[in-house]
Amino acid sequence: MSIGAADSLRTKVAELLVVRASAHSCDAQRNFPLWELSNQQLQRLIGEGVGGVILFGGTSTELLHRTRTLQSWSNKPLLFCADVEEGLGQRFEGGTWLVPPMALGQIYKKDRNHSLRLAERYGMCTGRQARSCGLNWILAPVCDVNSNPKNPVINLRAWGEDPLVVSDLACAFIRGLDSQGVLSCAKHFPGHGDTGVDSHLDLPVLEHDISRLKEFEFRPFKDAITAGVNSVMTAHILLSEIDPENPATLSSAVLTGLLRHQLGFDGLVVTDALVMQAIAKSYGCAQASVMAFAAGADLILMPENPDQAIDAICQALNSGRVPFERLDNALERRRKAISKVEAVSLEQSEKASFPFNEGIESAQDDLFAEALIDASLKIRHSGGIQVNTAGINLVRVDSVLSCPILANSAPTICLPEEIGFQSLLCHPLGISPWQNDSDSPLALDRLGEGPLLIQLFMRGNPFRGDCDSNEPWAAALLQLQREGLLAGLVVYGSPYVCDQLFPLLEPSIPFAYSPGQMPEAQRKALSSLIQPDLSELPSDSEYTYKFTD
Amino acid sequence: MSIGAADSLRTKVAELLVVRASAHSCDAQRNFPLWELSNQQLQRLIGEGVGGVILFGGTSTELLHRTRTLQSWSNKPLLFCADVEEGLGQRFEGGTWLVPPMALGQIYKKDRNHSLRLAERYGMCTGRQARSCGLNWILAPVCDVNSNPKNPVINLRAWGEDPLVVSDLACAFIRGLDSQGVLSCAKHFPGHGDTGVDSHLDLPVLEHDISRLKEFEFRPFKDAITAGVNSVMTAHILLSEIDPENPATLSSAVLTGLLRHQLGFDGLVVTDALVMQAIAKSYGCAQASVMAFAAGADLILMPENPDQAIDAICQALNSGRVPFERLDNALERRRKAISKVEAVSLEQSEKASFPFNEGIESAQDDLFAEALIDASLKIRHSGGIQVNTAGINLVRVDSVLSCPILANSAPTICLPEEIGFQSLLCHPLGISPWQNDSDSPLALDRLGEGPLLIQLFMRGNPFRGDCDSNEPWAAALLQLQREGLLAGLVVYGSPYVCDQLFPLLEPSIPFAYSPGQMPEAQRKALSSLIQPDLSELPSDSEYTYKFTD
Repeated sequence: MSIGAADSLRTKVAELLVVRASAHSCDAQRNFPLWELSNQQLQRLIGEGVGGVILFGGTSTELLHRTRTLQSWSNKPLLFCADVEEGLGQRFEGGTWLVPPMALGQIYKKDRNHSLRLAERYGMCTGRQARSCGLNWILAPVCDVNSNPKNPVINLRAWGEDPLVVSDLACAFIRGLDSQGVLSCAKHFPGHGDTGVDSHLDLPVLEHDISRLKEFEFRPFKDAITAGVNSVMTAHILLSEIDPENPATLSSAVLTGLLRHQLGFDGLVVTDALVMQAIAKSYGCAQASVMAFAAGADLILMPENPDQAIDAICQALNSGRVPFERLDNALERRRKAISKVEAVSLEQSEKASFPFNEGIESAQDDLFAEALIDASLKIRHSGGIQVNTAGINLVRVDSVLSCPILANSAPTICLPEEIGFQSLLCHPLGISPWQNDSDSPLALDRLGEGPLLIQLFMRGNPFRGDCDSNEPWAAALLQLQREGLLAGLVVYGSPYVCDQLFPLLEPSIPFAYSPGQMPEAQRKALSSLIQPDLSELPSDSEYTYKFTD
Repeated sequence: MSIGAADSLRTKVAELLVVRASAHSCDAQRNFPLWELSNQQLQRLIGEGVGGVILFGGTSTELLHRTRTLQSWSNKPLLFCADVEEGLGQRFEGGTWLVPPMALGQIYKKDRNHSLRLAERYGMCTGRQARSCGLNWILAPVCDVNSNPKNPVINLRAWGEDPLVVSDLACAFIRGLDSQGVLSCAKHFPGHGDTGVDSHLDLPVLEHDISRLKEFEFRPFKDAITAGVNSVMTAHILLSEIDPENPATLSSAVLTGLLRHQLGFDGLVVTDALVMQAIAKSYGCAQASVMAFAAGADLILMPENPDQAIDAICQALNSGRVPFERLDNALERRRKAISKVEAVSLEQSEKASFPFNEGIESAQDDLFAEALIDASLKIRHSGGIQVNTAGINLVRVDSVLSCPILANSAPTICLPEEIGFQSLLCHPLGISPWQNDSDSPLALDRLGEGPLLIQLFMRGNPFRGDCDSNEPWAAALLQLQREGLLAGLVVYGSPYVCDQLFPLLEPSIPFAYSPGQMPEAQRKALSSLIQPDLSELPSDSEYTYKFTD
């Protein structure tokens, strides 16, 4: 037994926890006060030894301020991580928000080398900005192979549907992160791509046997490990052929048997968030924390009650249920990982002033983000949107509240208004545009006069339980075409929605698709349909080709 | 002629400008990129001598960071101001957002001394938080007497409808600001309370003669000057009896004749924003800047093109159209004002780290904000909202985009959902809830089944051109009552809307009113109707009285 006094044990166990905080300074600003600890809780827990914080929400300026504040509450270097899979701007305003990884998988099919360069720059851009704000651990790349187009939670967060593509791009991304001195994280082991259930809501079950896993799901993880990925995050899925009792996160067969022994990974293993319903529905916080730790996880992410998690792991160690060696190994792995990025943290904390004055997004970052949008934009011009008739701009979003898509004079609203369209937002808290008629589902009398420009923001969004909603957009497009009322269609997000709807369109209907939903993607998609400079656009046929292959 | 070389003149004139910036660090984060200068523009203009910045948008943490960055671009202390008439949180997330001044005017009627203490604390809370974030000049108090209930732009920004009430409360507020070492600003001289036109959109005309002005509009300004207010902001209104040619902002008769000579004000006179349509519709930027300066304004706020404004004023001085004495006087007044708050700025810039870790809102601020909500909340309980029937929670807002009212799990949505109500947002970009029937204006078939809880967020909002919308809510309430479908009514904001709608309600209909629209006001108003603890509530009759007197 290598550990002495009880309070010292508690401090050491606490080091393995990663708790959730808002990047906002003030408790009242938390977007999710049920999940984001208060300042008082954070200060106490960090003072008691908690070693990691996952951050959500706020701006890049606030994030930097926040990581400094949190670090000041500890006497050891902390791990600061965030789910910035799509650039820092995905979570923190002011950072660069990049098109989803799936867009690079599409580019890969056309030009592998170009896509690999882009993926490495994707990692560099994300890593540099994250580090500038005090983050030292990026919870990416997603190494899941999105073999199920109906996947409600991975979908276009994945680099593609092919293990080789995912593997190549994920490894390039890891090189990019490495070059910026931040830790990487391959997720969600052993592969969350073939699930039809959102693990935020329930536990997905996968029936793949070991040979299928080795052939398909493991490939990107194996290559990421070879490429030196610093950590691996577990999946909250049940592999009925591997361990029919325990979800992967809590399974020794998966974490120790497969990940450590078969794949030979000796870096940090971190659980996915234990508050997710896939785990929390069936396991208490203490139970789940101990099981994950016993199974081989080094770091425990977002247990509902951090104190319970620490106490339960201490008890499991003291009672002999879990050997102290597990604790030593986990702490040693954390120490090694921290040492790789510590120089960066120290350098930062010594700087008296802020390292950036005018935002962290450099002109190059901005150009890179634009280039990614350009490279993944699909347009069928068809003469452009007719501007001689006022019409309705129907914009469908998952939510209008705190919606970064619609922030700052969103082009999706402003550009159609400039040519006389009146905007209508369609969202779950709005009056329904639907009527009970499967052939003519749109209640046109509610929408106003004139042709409709339809803009759909649809992608797999965690917590929503589906990836493309159950709204009858296909029938609605046919209805509008029958009535001669479809001015155009723009899809932002899911390539699967695009592939489903595009073939329904008559050739005369202008169409655009971007995997990105950010304002700049809106501007590019719309301005190409509204103010087309035909000389700069590839011919329609080339673009049409992309949709029909 | 007291000023020598041309470049030196330009630098001195530049000092009189106040330009607009976002508190966000990054250009791409600006909420109004047409009005908020880019970092490049700001750095150049401040380097060339521009002496003041008005800030909008962002969080309190960003604001502090921003004022430091902007100050670092100058070799002299800058004026940093903001329109935080309702607490720092009105403009900057994380600051305390207080109920509008009009609420204190209501409390004044019941307990003058209590309301004066509250107004002074209102100033202390605003001043302390602003100063913590680097602001040194508060563009408040509003000294307008809101004698026109249909005023689209002042309304509940005013402390009341009675000159004496406004005067007393404004002076108490000034004492509060003074105690925190920030400059105050009485606005909008000579009084913007009796206008039916929004000066953001057009030029209001007032026909009051000098004796009416002296009796009524001047009272709060005169008392504020006696109380030592540091600056006075001009109104963009035309006083046909005083100067039938020039709006007050550009009128020597008003600024020099009335304000300087008759009221004896020797502090800073600042224009309201020159980009507002009341001025910009009829006067070019150069012309307006020169006219305002010649008329007696010391500081020029938000000229559309700062370079043009500077050049035009230089030319007016050099050509002799405006005497150099005006420049000397304006610079001297600015110097005096800055010297009052400079000690504060220096103290701040010397601090290496941020002065607040966990947000600037203290526990006392929070309690104060709550106390103001409690003191201005009006409830008629009527048995509370029935929870045994699912219903529709219809929430009417001016806009759903970037809407602080609806941020962070807004109680207006979450609390009714907890008792089975389904929320529907009603806003200008949504599908209309209205049908063409003046007796039954609500299209009930679009809203779903069950009784409706109606929540109206309505107040005079600049740029909207009206104070209570033209939506037929009165008829809608009568329609719902006829159909037995009105579950309750909550009004947030305008006391005039409250006074208009409350008398229409049957005694059995639960009702609440708060002048505040912030989430905490929502929580207090709704929870009193939904989960009433009757023992703590005053009797219905007492509350009913307030609406009928």
